Amino acid sequence: MFKLYYAPGTCALASHIALEEAGASYTTERLDFKSNQQTSPEYLKLNPKGRVPTLVTDHGILTETPAMLAFIAQSFPKAKLAPLEDAFAFAQVQAFNSYLCSTVHVAHAHKGRGYRWATDESSFADMKRKVPQTVGACFALIERDMLKGPWVMGEQYTVCDPYLFTLALWLEGDSVDLAALPKVADHRKRMSERPAVKKVLAEEKAA
Amino acid sequence: MFKLYYAPGTCALASHIALEEAGASYTTERLDFKSNQQTSPEYLKLNPKGRVPTLVTDHGILTETPAMLAFIAQSFPKAKLAPLEDAFAFAQVQAFNSYLCSTVHVAHAHKGRGYRWATDESSFADMKRKVPQTVGACFALIERDMLKGPWVMGEQYTVCDPYLFTLALWLEGDSVDLAALPKVADHRKRMSERPAVKKVLAEEKAA
Repeated sequence: MFKLYYAPGTCALASHIALEEAGASYTTERLDFKSNQQTSPEYLKLNPKGRVPTLVTDHGILTETPAMLAFIAQSFPKAKLAPLEDAFAFAQVQAFNSYLCSTVHVAHAHKGRGYRWATDESSFADMKRKVPQTVGACFALIERDMLKGPWVMGEQYTVCDPYLFTLALWLEGDSVDLAALPKVADHRKRMSERPAVKKVLAEEKAA
Repeated sequence: MFKLYYAPGTCALASHIALEEAGASYTTERLDFKSNQQTSPEYLKLNPKGRVPTLVTDHGILTETPAMLAFIAQSFPKAKLAPLEDAFAFAQVQAFNSYLCSTVHVAHAHKGRGYRWATDESSFADMKRKVPQTVGACFALIERDMLKGPWVMGEQYTVCDPYLFTLALWLEGDSVDLAALPKVADHRKRMSERPAVKKVLAEEKAA
């Protein structure tokens, strides 16, 4: 049994989809970012980083999307969400997810969360202006060198797919032109047609 | 057989130490960042991100420190560099490494690489001023909640240890007070006394 703490529109969506695809027994708890619920003393006890996602498992609490995605894949081997029997192929899955968390998500975060790394309003505006270029460059690299198609790792759907899908949903908001990213756009469309993705998006959008 | 592309003073040190601790057969190739060797057409063929580290393996090329560290641990199970038989314990290793790459390293990078996320000199200066605070907050969290001691995961030395050690070497340069981080300082000292670490540091420092 798992419990996922998430907020709509965040990277927690990747783990939410992965749990659903895995056929896991899980419940969810939505945090209200507008009232800063992620920094409440109650939540900080679960996740002292004050971020989402947090995954409560029977063994303890996990944070960090790449770690959670690999754990979900390992916990449900029959769902084949990662090439668990091939260490190099597994490492490629991990390298992709690591790039998303440490470079792509970080580039995106400079649009609305510049206060994490700077103090002046002028710096926030400067960072915000550069986001279309930086996020665009990340996705150009994904388009050209990483996304094998039809899924990220090729024929086999893996935990890379919900993670890429999650970050690709932010492209319009980051003013990145999807027309220049036909493989990414195609992947996003294919993802959005999966029953698990439809179900999770409906839940996250519900009031 | 492995080949590690690295530059001195970078996060590639973590994988370099892990290879040495694993008893792997490997060679290294040093990149000269001053002449921007990491963006040469030759290197970009290996690693289109233009960063270090890059690990050439018998199966193909790997990038991204957390993926490389897990792969090294899985490739040399006898070295016991990760709790491979316990998916949750392995996920905790991964969560720690993911935090280092996506939050701690990123906070540090705003000191000298502000151009990644902004354009104006004033923004770079603003980012640089905040680094002692942001990196300090990351390490305060590591000190308080993450570093179990004597090693990151407790009694068992894992790939988390060379990674933490690598980033902790940057603390003085980031103007973070080590006196406020006794566990981190103790860990760094204990790491620096390991034969594998001494050997790797000597190689990276050699002309």
